[in-house]
Order: sequence, then C-alpha cells, then structure tokens
Amino acid sequence: MVASLENHQPHQVVIVGGGFGGLYAAKALKTANVDVTLIDKRNFHLFQPLLYQVATGALSATDISAPLRSVLSTSKNTKVLLGEVNDIDPKTQQVILGDKVVPYDTLIVATGAKHSYFGKDNWKEFAPGLKTVEDAIEMRRRIFTAFEAAEQETDIEKRRALLTFVIVGAGPTGVELAGAIAELAYKTLQEDFRNIDTSETRILLLQGGDRILPALAPELSQEAEASLERLGVIVHTKTRVTNIENDIVTLKQNDQFKEIAAKTVLWAAGVQGSPMGKVLAERTGVECDRSGRVIVEPDLSIKGHQNIFVVGDLANFSHQNGQPLPGVAPVAKQEGEYVAALIQKRLQGKTLRPFKYTDYGNLAMIGQNSAVVDLGLIKLKGYFAWLFWLLIHIYFLIEFDHKILVMIQWAWNYLTRKRSARLITGKESLALTKSEDSHTSTYTPTNNRQTVNV
Amino acid sequence: MVASLENHQPHQVVIVGGGFGGLYAAKALKTANVDVTLIDKRNFHLFQPLLYQVATGALSATDISAPLRSVLSTSKNTKVLLGEVNDIDPKTQQVILGDKVVPYDTLIVATGAKHSYFGKDNWKEFAPGLKTVEDAIEMRRRIFTAFEAAEQETDIEKRRALLTFVIVGAGPTGVELAGAIAELAYKTLQEDFRNIDTSETRILLLQGGDRILPALAPELSQEAEASLERLGVIVHTKTRVTNIENDIVTLKQNDQFKEIAAKTVLWAAGVQGSPMGKVLAERTGVECDRSGRVIVEPDLSIKGHQNIFVVGDLANFSHQNGQPLPGVAPVAKQEGEYVAALIQKRLQGKTLRPFKYTDYGNLAMIGQNSAVVDLGLIKLKGYFAWLFWLLIHIYFLIEFDHKILVMIQWAWNYLTRKRSARLITGKESLALTKSEDSHTSTYTPTNNRQTVNV
Repeated sequence: MVASLENHQPHQVVIVGGGFGGLYAAKALKTANVDVTLIDKRNFHLFQPLLYQVATGALSATDISAPLRSVLSTSKNTKVLLGEVNDIDPKTQQVILGDKVVPYDTLIVATGAKHSYFGKDNWKEFAPGLKTVEDAIEMRRRIFTAFEAAEQETDIEKRRALLTFVIVGAGPTGVELAGAIAELAYKTLQEDFRNIDTSETRILLLQGGDRILPALAPELSQEAEASLERLGVIVHTKTRVTNIENDIVTLKQNDQFKEIAAKTVLWAAGVQGSPMGKVLAERTGVECDRSGRVIVEPDLSIKGHQNIFVVGDLANFSHQNGQPLPGVAPVAKQEGEYVAALIQKRLQGKTLRPFKYTDYGNLAMIGQNSAVVDLGLIKLKGYFAWLFWLLIHIYFLIEFDHKILVMIQWAWNYLTRKRSARLITGKESLALTKSEDSHTSTYTPTNNRQTVNV
Repeated sequence: MVASLENHQPHQVVIVGGGFGGLYAAKALKTANVDVTLIDKRNFHLFQPLLYQVATGALSATDISAPLRSVLSTSKNTKVLLGEVNDIDPKTQQVILGDKVVPYDTLIVATGAKHSYFGKDNWKEFAPGLKTVEDAIEMRRRIFTAFEAAEQETDIEKRRALLTFVIVGAGPTGVELAGAIAELAYKTLQEDFRNIDTSETRILLLQGGDRILPALAPELSQEAEASLERLGVIVHTKTRVTNIENDIVTLKQNDQFKEIAAKTVLWAAGVQGSPMGKVLAERTGVECDRSGRVIVEPDLSIKGHQNIFVVGDLANFSHQNGQPLPGVAPVAKQEGEYVAALIQKRLQGKTLRPFKYTDYGNLAMIGQNSAVVDLGLIKLKGYFAWLFWLLIHIYFLIEFDHKILVMIQWAWNYLTRKRSARLITGKESLALTKSEDSHTSTYTPTNNRQTVNV
C-alpha cells in the first residue's frame, strides 16, 4: 500500500461508479483523512431496485434517483467527476478518462453489471432489459405503446400479439415486472380503452429453472407463483427461450418447441460484469468468472494489487460453497462500507478481518398487498410481507435523499391504482405499429367492444 | 351544421389536440349526446406552465403530465386516439392520420403553437425552446451539463462561457426560467462543486421591448425586474438578439452590437401556430395571421365552415383593439369549454352568444417567495403573490389529476432548496464539452477553488 505523504497531500481514493457499492464507500469515507474522487458517467445515483416501477408507469425516473453531488455535498473531502473511465494503469496508479487521467493511491471499482443475452446479442433489440433510466423509459414506451396499438388494430392475431407480454427470467425483477403489468392490464387500464378489453392481456413469466425467485426459500417461491397466478400471470418454469426475433419468442419446454407471438418481450434473465472487469483483467492479470465478474480476495482487493478493490455487482466474492454473493444492493452497500473501513485501518497501520456479508434476507414485491419476504428464520407472505417490503424501501430511500414523498406517492398510487407516470416519451414516441395495409381505412368511433376499429 | 341522424349514430365530434383547449372541450362534452374522439400524438396532457420547473430540475416530467386516457376514463362517450393528424378534408368531413381517416360532424382543432425563431431556424440548435417534455429534458441536460463541464474546465474564458446562461425573451417562461436558474446557481448548487464557485454564474435575461412581462401592469414589470435583479439575474430590456451561433450570442442595444460568449442559450421568445393552421388555410381558405394563427369568427368557428372550430394557442381571436387573445392556458380552457357548450346548443337547435374571454388576471413566478400577480384591480407582489401563484397552480393541477402530492413535493423542494430531479438523461447524456487540447492532462484533486482542474 502506498500512502502518498509527499506534499502532505492526503491519501487519494478514487471510486469508479456511483451505485450502491461506490456511493456507500464514498459516504463511509466522509470523515476519513483522505481525498475522495467519485467518478461516474451519470450525474445521479439510481435506486435500481425500484426501476421496474418506472418501467410500468408508477414512479418517475427522478423519484428513484438522487444527484450524486447533492448526496455527497457535505462530504467536503469528496469530489464528484462526471466522466467515463475507459482504462486504468496500475503501474503509474492512474485511471484514464479519454484525454484525462486521475491519479490514485487506492482505487475502488464499482461499475456494476449490465445485461447478458448469453451470447445472443441480437435478442437485445426485441427484448430490452432494465438497468438504466433510459432502459426503464424505453420499456415504459413499449408497454404503453402496445396497448395503444392494440386499441387501433383490427386484425385479431395482431391484436393478440400486441396484448401478449413475455417476461424472460423470474428473479425479483422479472417477478416484479410481471406483477406490475398484471395490475396495469387487469386493474389500472381497465376503464381507459374503448375498443380493446385489457383483461384479454396475456402475461407470461418464463423461468429456466424449476422455480421462480430461486434465491428465496422454496415455500416462498411457491407462494409467489400462486400470488402471481391469482393476479393473472401465466408462470412457466423449466422453460428455456431458444430464440427471440420479429415478435416471436421460441420456447423449449420438456424438449418441445413452442412459438409465442408477442410484441413486447422484456429481458430480466442474465447479467454480466461491466466492461471494467475486462480492463482490470487485462491490466492486472486478475481472473474473471464466466459472467465477467472479477474474482476478489477475502478483503475485496484483487490478487497482487492490494490497493485495487472491486465491490458490488462486478465482484465475485466467494461465499458459502464457493457460490458468489448475489448482485443485490445490500451486498454492494456492505462491500463498499467494508473497503472504506479497511482503507482507514490501513492508514493507521492496522488491518481488518476479511469481508463477511450479513444477509438480512431477500424479498420481492408481487403486487398490491402481496410480497414475499425471506429473513431466514422468519418468512412472510401476503399483506405483511408487502408492508415489510414498503417499509424497507422507504427506509433506504429516505436514507440518502429524504425521499419520503416518493413513497407516499407510491403508496397513494397503490391505493388509487393510478399509474400517472405512464408517459410515452423519447425519440420514437410516435412509432405506433404501422398497419401493413396501405389503403385508407375508415375509422368508425363506437363503444361496442366486439367491433374493433383501426 | 350537419347532424348525422342516419343509423341513429350520435353527432361525431373530433378534437385534434389534448392540451388545455382540446382537453377542456372533451371534458365539457362528457354528458352531451355526442361521440367524442380526442386525437393527440402524445398519450398525455402536459401542464405546460410548469415545464420550466422540469427544465431546472425541480419537478419531473411525470409530475406535470396526466395520461389523457386516465383523465377521460369516465367520459364513456369519449375515445382517445394516439396519432398525428396530417390533413383534413372539409368536403367529406374527415381528418386524415397517415393511412387512417376519422369522420367528423364537428371538428375542433386545438393543436397549439410551437417555437418561432423569426425565420432564423438555424438558431434552434444553439437555443432550444420549451414546449414539450423532450424540450424540457434537453434544457435540463444542457443546464446541468454546463455546470459539470465548468467544473472540469481549466481555461478561464471557456469556464466563463460555460457559466453564462442567456435567456432570450422575458415573458412568463423567460422570467421563470431566469429566476429558477438563479436559485439553482446561487443557492441549490452552492455546496455541490469543488473547483468552481457557482456564484460566479451569470444569467442574462434579454427582452426586445422596453419592459419584461409586457402582459402585466407596468408597475408589476418593474417589481419583477427588481426581484430578478435581487436574485442575481442581469436584465437587459430594449435588447435584440441579432445572431446565435457557436456559443456566441450577438446583441443589439441602442444601435451598438455586443457579443456574449455563452454555452447555454435558452429560447423563450417567439411562438407560431402549429402546422395544422397552414393545413386549415389550404383546405378551407381561412386566413392566418403573421404568426400562423388561424383568424377565427366570434364563435371560434372558421369563415365558411360553421362546423370547424379552432381554440387555444392556434386561434387568433380578435380581442379589444383588434389584439388577439394571448396564448395562455386560461384562454384555451375557456375557448374549449365555449365550443363544447355551443355544440350542445346547436344540437338543440339553439345558438349561443359569441365567445367572450373572462380575464382573471396574469401572474408569473420569479423565485422563492416572490411572484407578481395582476388581477386588474388587485395587484400582488412578493410573498403574497407567490402564495397566490402556488394556490392557483395547486387548484389547476388537482382539478384534472388530483396531483396534490406534486405541489407538496414542489413546496418541499422550495423549502429545502433541493432540486432532486436534476438528472442528465437522454442520448447525449455523456456529451461533456470536449477539451480542444488532445494531450493527456493530469487531474489533481484539490479543494482549492483558485486552482481549477481538468
């Protein structure tokens, strides 16, 4: 470890990434005798666990974001630098951002994960994932445009495809998306259309493994599946997607192939480490796992580089049975805080016991008044789980930005079943499905649901 | 007037545009014995008067929007159709949307206005205006990116240009933008940067005429100008912009030309009627004014076409002294409601007195605890005007979407001076001003404000 005492300049900590890992590391260094530079390509921290609420029109992107500068405003030893790190040089101890370099004594890499299409990158165009604000707004655009296009579609087959939503992957994001779309179709939008009956919407949740929410106890997976089915979601486990192309999803179930025509396919399946993992591997020789996550040492540093740490979704920290810790916010937060503590210990010439994750449990929201919570000994479901989920999220949102009003609004939306944030915005806002018929057809207003009009 | 009694089909009212004019016409027809089709290219109504709050990071776009379907959900005689009308045919009584046509008995055109650069359309790229959600998000991106780029800029002249904001036009939008940016720079962001002092920000508000807010009484213009100057805004009246190009604004003041280097130029000057005005002129022979607004009859119909009405910003309704009514929400709302009433009277074989606008007054927000309100006999300024402004906006926001929480949040933002919605999003989110030097420079973290770092 190099403590730069020349010029009495404090120890320079550079953190790349302002997600849960990076931000909590920075916050924990607030009173340390170090200079901190937090680099992110976005100017805000994003509360990713609630991103599905943006994608389904219940919250706005700003509701679940906090400007990094604002969160770190009182950390006078901390600078925020807007920029994208594209390389590091461990020899000269610098991170490189285009034509700029930032020197470090200690580096914390917390650049997270991105989607993985398991090598089928051409699926991306048909099945967007949910990692960024732009992803959520694009997903929102697709979901609400599908209903709008269905309202105008006369062809029964095409209308059916427009009202079919396929969600690939039944981890928390997939489950929460499926539940939210079910509430949207079967409750919120019920009175809003005149030509279509939104209760005809089909929502398919596909899971490769034999149960949904595999991180939870089996009885809670079962409970969650039953809750989703009560909401109207069709759950298919042991089902693999073999192709996604031109609004057709091809499935494999028990060696049988099946094609589903669906205009909206949402990806909640795989993730992989962000590109910084590869950069670290090239520059330091550190090993990455098959998902591109960096294998870290027991103190979250990387092999042979005591002053480079990886935390959060990009880190593969070997847990019980050699399984890596899951890519969830509490893991990232605890890892970031651990590294901040270790840096301070080292500056005092001390050390710290290896990192140990304290698992407070897992939880997933299914829909109004329904969630599943697995706290190990205590397992909750239904209304109490829902309330618990709400309180936990209120707690975390308040912690960094006093966003209590967000949760009030969100609870209000739940009570009123309103989703007032269902804006279709962005470049392609107007891109309704074009009818393939080029002749001029007549649009006849009617309230008769049987007759579907263009 | 043609009442289509064949097939017992109710009278078909088609409304183009879901702004204040179109939406209030539709709402007023809720219980009428007519079928209403409201066509808009967006799926939401936008509360444009608060758009500047989105552009400056105080509210999110969803806070000031309401889904049209949700607002009209209980109007069972009303359909919402997402699409862009590109032509009308008065002979066959149809509006045309690409390959679709919608027949009407009565047509209400309420497509509003867009920016006018007075023939200098090349200014648009350098000086975006504020009419749509996308405009506001783009403005927000520019404003916050300017501060981020300034934080990284070493060249003093360039930094000065990055911290210079020029607002062209001092009507309500220009005044409100200038006030909001002043609060941002001099209060909200004060503690957030380490290299720049945001109090060095210059905000110039330019007005061609001899006073700001010309729609208000002269003493209130004076008061507003004094308030803005107390906030730190530099107000230039009798100042014309002669060019905007490559971050240079050229002004003409008393026959003197002056150049101002400014990275962020915001357009709040001219508006012109939307393209539907031209379509109407071509198809019906109706006259448009110089700003592309359609000259309407005393009952808001167009000459020779009793069943075609124009309401809102697209209409030129001759007022006292031949001046058209201003393009503000209350005018559009009253016009929409008038036409809805007239249609119902006509169906009963009756008629209605010509439209008369009831002017309840004008108002503009300047900043925290400061606004100006002109109610004719009563004129308010300062705190009471601010409170009045707030109550009026709460009233209107609640009216169509019960958005009371928006206003609570907004008031909260004011109290805490937070602007938590300051996300830099969109395609070019990362486009910080590139340094023209291509060599690798060293970024040295420091808290010394004198030394500005890359």
